[in-house]
Amino acid sequence: MDLKYAVKKIVVLGNGSWGTTLAILLYKKGYEVTLWGANASYVDCLKEKRENIKFLKGVPIPSGISLTSDISPVLKDNHLVVSATPTPYLRAVLTKFLNIFSHEIPMVSVTKGIENDTLMTPSEIITDVLGKRPVSLLLGPSHAEEVVRGLPTTVVASSKDDTLARIVQGVFTTDRFRVYTNPDVIGVELGAAMKNVIAIAAGICDGLKFGDNSKAALISRGLAEISRLGIAMGAQKSTFSGLTGLGDLITTCISPYGRNRRVGEQIGKGKKLQEILDAMEQIAEGVWTTKSVMALSRKFSVEMPITKEIYAVLFLNKNPLEAVSHLMMRAPRSEMEDLI
Amino acid sequence: MDLKYAVKKIVVLGNGSWGTTLAILLYKKGYEVTLWGANASYVDCLKEKRENIKFLKGVPIPSGISLTSDISPVLKDNHLVVSATPTPYLRAVLTKFLNIFSHEIPMVSVTKGIENDTLMTPSEIITDVLGKRPVSLLLGPSHAEEVVRGLPTTVVASSKDDTLARIVQGVFTTDRFRVYTNPDVIGVELGAAMKNVIAIAAGICDGLKFGDNSKAALISRGLAEISRLGIAMGAQKSTFSGLTGLGDLITTCISPYGRNRRVGEQIGKGKKLQEILDAMEQIAEGVWTTKSVMALSRKFSVEMPITKEIYAVLFLNKNPLEAVSHLMMRAPRSEMEDLI
Repeated sequence: MDLKYAVKKIVVLGNGSWGTTLAILLYKKGYEVTLWGANASYVDCLKEKRENIKFLKGVPIPSGISLTSDISPVLKDNHLVVSATPTPYLRAVLTKFLNIFSHEIPMVSVTKGIENDTLMTPSEIITDVLGKRPVSLLLGPSHAEEVVRGLPTTVVASSKDDTLARIVQGVFTTDRFRVYTNPDVIGVELGAAMKNVIAIAAGICDGLKFGDNSKAALISRGLAEISRLGIAMGAQKSTFSGLTGLGDLITTCISPYGRNRRVGEQIGKGKKLQEILDAMEQIAEGVWTTKSVMALSRKFSVEMPITKEIYAVLFLNKNPLEAVSHLMMRAPRSEMEDLI
Repeated sequence: MDLKYAVKKIVVLGNGSWGTTLAILLYKKGYEVTLWGANASYVDCLKEKRENIKFLKGVPIPSGISLTSDISPVLKDNHLVVSATPTPYLRAVLTKFLNIFSHEIPMVSVTKGIENDTLMTPSEIITDVLGKRPVSLLLGPSHAEEVVRGLPTTVVASSKDDTLARIVQGVFTTDRFRVYTNPDVIGVELGAAMKNVIAIAAGICDGLKFGDNSKAALISRGLAEISRLGIAMGAQKSTFSGLTGLGDLITTCISPYGRNRRVGEQIGKGKKLQEILDAMEQIAEGVWTTKSVMALSRKFSVEMPITKEIYAVLFLNKNPLEAVSHLMMRAPRSEMEDLI
C-alpha cells in the first residue's frame, strides 16, 4: 500500500454493536459511511428508528450513515471495507461479496474468533474466501458501549503490510480512540480471540461467587496458557503482554458488558448453555472459540488446563464448581511450572 | 533450614486485617498462635470483643488465639514469626523485638511495600534491623476479606532458601489457600509492592468514570513498567506474569476491597489526598510506595510514565484528569515502544 492511499468512502459489513459503533466513529470523522447488515428486515428497523435497538440501545445513528442489506455493485466504490461479522457467520457473509470488492481494496478485520472447522482466524477467512488482498486487523480492549460514549480507548492495528497498518491508524484515530500499530499479526489476532475463553472461566468464578483472589489467579494463568499456544503458533511473546493480549483479557473479564463473561457467570449460577444462548441477542464468540482452541491445543501439543475445563463444562456437561475448583486447587509445587 | 523443622507455635506481628486473617487461618490448622499488636488499648478492645472491629469487621477471633501487645521474652519460644506490619511502621516495630527472636527463628514477611528513605523491601528491613536470619516471603492476590471467608486463594512463598519456602508452603496451605513457591525473591517482593501504585492509577480511572477499556490499557502498561524496573533490579521477567505480579495487580485494581484503588477513586472524584488518608483506618501502602518507586525509577534510569503521573497527582497537586488523559492519549506509534 501507499501511505497516500486516499480513503473517503468506507463500508462496514456487520451491524452488531461494534460494527455500528465503528460506523458512527468513522462518520463523525467525516468519512462517507455505509453500514451493511445481512438481515433485511432488521436493516429496515434500523432505518426507521435510526437506532440499533437490539445491539446498541439508546445511541442515535446519524442520518448521514447509509443503511443497507443490498449486495449492490455500488459498494465496490468504497476505499476501505471493515469486516465486522462474527466468526460463525463470516464465511457466509463474505461469500456474498465475492464479485464486489476488487483485490486492491484493503479490508480491516475487527472480528475476534477462530473458525471451528478450519481453525482459521478471521483475517485468514477473508483471504480464503475473497482471495489475496491487503488486510489489517483492528483489535484491542474496546467495549462498544464505552467507545460510542467517547470514553478513552486504545487499540492495535496490525498488518503484514506496515503501511496499511499506518493507514488504518490514521483512518480510525480520534482524540479518544488511539490506534497503536504492532506487526505481529498472528499474536494480535490469536490473543484477541482466545481471551474470550478465559472470560467464560472468569465469569464462572463470578457466578460461583469465588471472589477476586480466584479470578485474578485464573486470569494470570489464562494469559500464560494463551501465550504458550500463541508462541507455538509463531506469535511474539511480548504481544500477549499488550493491548490485544493482557489488555483485552482484563476488560473482557471485568467489564459488565462482557458477553462471554456473562455467559460464564450464568453457567456458574447453574444455568445450561443452550438456555443462555437462546436468551441472548448477541453472539458469545468465546463459546465457539473454546472448541477451536481445544483443537489447536491438541494440534500443537500445548497444555491448556483452563481451556480444557471450560470445554468440558460447555460441551461435556461437567459441573462448573468441580471444574473451577479443580483449576484453583490442583497443586503444582512451583509457580513456574504453570507460567513457562 | 531443615525440611523437618518442627513448627508448633507461631506469632503474628501486626493485627491489621491480613495479620488477623493469617492468625485465624493458622489457628484453624492447629497451630498455637499469638497475635501481637503495637497498640495496647486496641489489643484490649480485641480481647474484650474477640473481633477486629476496625480492620476485619464481623469475623470472630477464636478464643484460642492469644492476643497481646507485650514484648515478652516468652515470645522467643515461637517457631515461626509472621511479620505483618505495614512498611512505614515496620522498622520501629521490629526494633522492639531486637532481643527477643534468636537468629535461627525463621520469619515470614507478608508486607507489600518499599521503605521511603532506604528504598529497602520489607524482607531487607527485617535483616537490616534484626540481623541475618532465615526469611521467606508470602505474597500474592489475597484480599483478607476473601481469605477469611474461605474463598479460594493462591499465593507464593519465596525465599533464597528453597527449603524454608517449602516449610512455609506446608505451614500455610489449606484446601482453600494454595501456596506455590518461586525462588525469585526480589521479583516477588517488588511486584507485590509496586502493583499498589498502578492500583491508585486504576482507581483514578474509576473515579473519573473512564471505563474498563481505559483501565485495562492502564493495567497492561502498568505491568510493563513494573517489569522494566524489576528486571533492572535483578528480577526474573516471568515472575511479573505470575501471582505476585499480574495476579496481584488485577485483584488490587478490580476489587472493591482494594484500599489503594479506593484512594485513587476518591482522588479521581476530586478529593484531596490528605483528607482521604485522614478518613481511613487502614494504611494505603501505595501512596508511600509511589515515592519509593519514583526514587528507584531515577536510581535505575527506568522510564515509568504511570508512576511519574501518579506521583505528580499525589504529591505535586497535579490535576488527576489531566494526568490520566495524558497517559491514555499520548501517542507512541508502535505498541512495542511501550511494552519493551
